[in-house]
Amino acid sequence: MTAPTRITIAGLGLMGGSLARALRTLATPPVVHAVDVDAAVLRDALDERVVDAAHGSLQSAPPSDLLVLCVPVDATLALLREGGAALLRHALITDVASVKAAVHRAADAAGIAERFVGSHPLCGDHRSGFVAARADLYHGSVVYVTTPAPPHAIAAVHAFWAGLGCRVRDMDAAAHDELVARTSHLPQAAAAMLAAALADLDVPAAELGRGGRDTTRIAASDAALWTGILTHNREALAAPLAALERRIGSLRRALDEGDAATVRDALQRGSTWRRTAP
Amino acid sequence: MTAPTRITIAGLGLMGGSLARALRTLATPPVVHAVDVDAAVLRDALDERVVDAAHGSLQSAPPSDLLVLCVPVDATLALLREGGAALLRHALITDVASVKAAVHRAADAAGIAERFVGSHPLCGDHRSGFVAARADLYHGSVVYVTTPAPPHAIAAVHAFWAGLGCRVRDMDAAAHDELVARTSHLPQAAAAMLAAALADLDVPAAELGRGGRDTTRIAASDAALWTGILTHNREALAAPLAALERRIGSLRRALDEGDAATVRDALQRGSTWRRTAP
Repeated sequence: MTAPTRITIAGLGLMGGSLARALRTLATPPVVHAVDVDAAVLRDALDERVVDAAHGSLQSAPPSDLLVLCVPVDATLALLREGGAALLRHALITDVASVKAAVHRAADAAGIAERFVGSHPLCGDHRSGFVAARADLYHGSVVYVTTPAPPHAIAAVHAFWAGLGCRVRDMDAAAHDELVARTSHLPQAAAAMLAAALADLDVPAAELGRGGRDTTRIAASDAALWTGILTHNREALAAPLAALERRIGSLRRALDEGDAATVRDALQRGSTWRRTAP
Repeated sequence: MTAPTRITIAGLGLMGGSLARALRTLATPPVVHAVDVDAAVLRDALDERVVDAAHGSLQSAPPSDLLVLCVPVDATLALLREGGAALLRHALITDVASVKAAVHRAADAAGIAERFVGSHPLCGDHRSGFVAARADLYHGSVVYVTTPAPPHAIAAVHAFWAGLGCRVRDMDAAAHDELVARTSHLPQAAAAMLAAALADLDVPAAELGRGGRDTTRIAASDAALWTGILTHNREALAAPLAALERRIGSLRRALDEGDAATVRDALQRGSTWRRTAP
């Protein structure tokens, strides 16, 4: 399969803008059409020659070899739901959302299952928007390419990310969602709820020590973005969140009862586990 | 009040060893007697001339101007409980434990309330023991000096830490324990229980992304040390831990019910709060 020569990027934020910049660095750069609702961002991207053409909606973008949806998961689902015939102009379609089963279901419903492959690049930044976009954001990142999808489509999307220097892993969408519910969404939920509890307790954030700052760092992430991720992965997140709630309840009861052995066992389990991290 | 010229350090771990090294850097270094149960550590400290004399127990240490208990909180309480007349040889006594009301109660019970002032230096390291001790550990750190205690004793202990370059804040022991329950012990408990839950879920620690690594980093701390801290501060920790449990339960229920507005409000509260950290 040859590399796509015409690519459409829907959404020129951190992810889409960085993708456009990365494509410019290729030995044979594709023609890139950008779609964004923000006219100022499109103008900036054209002025900087990061993209070749700009469109205010998917309906006005011409056919291409590959459409990459680079918007938050809620907007990804909306584009698939409302894209209609505009989606069928593109030979292949992928996305970058952190949740995959819901996106695959929406692609099925949109009648594009034969040309859709999910993607989830494990990269990001605490900053967002086109202003934060950079050509090296994807380089060296793990990208999960998710199925079910036809073999030729999987191979093409896999090759696309590999061509940008990504470490690509193919995975079933449901298995992907179970994995990130544990490795990413549960830590995010824990940090965010710790921060919310500290706000409830009227603790000034400036009073945190280094440990408290580390433990709550990712709680500063965009709330709307993470609402979409957590709600669209709520089935896979239910058991991990219940496991965390059980651990905290058990610790609280052990402290209430002065049961130091149970406290120590719980701390030791966490400590032993964490020390196996690289 | 003149600076102490004879100091006794009980416990030559990271905290006591670093204190001994820091004292050596003073313009007029005091004579330092060390007490430790580990003969090899005492020999190393003598060989390196970090201390002037070494003793296997407090009972064999001679009188001094200031005794600093540099052992975990459980051992601090045991030394106060069992020290007896050996404590009364020292004009002033302080400690470095992270929990203060329990230590003050033990000092009262030991009959040394008139010469005891609590101290809690906010410094540490992921490494422990005399091998990790370094002269600059305390420099620039905040040290809480806790009361009730007689004014001359407070002034002397305050001046002692200030002389080592610490930023000293005097505070009531109960208020101290309430503060650190929120700013330090709750984040520690949250990180540790998240790590324990991830262990329960059979997640390999190597699969964590950067966010998950940050959120669980302090879970790798020494379990026995933190068991002492959490159990001896369980009264002050009860309300913060219940607040965290409520937040996590509320998030789990909102996700179960597909209540995205409640999920977003909770994430937004944590995000807004965290963004006020320096």
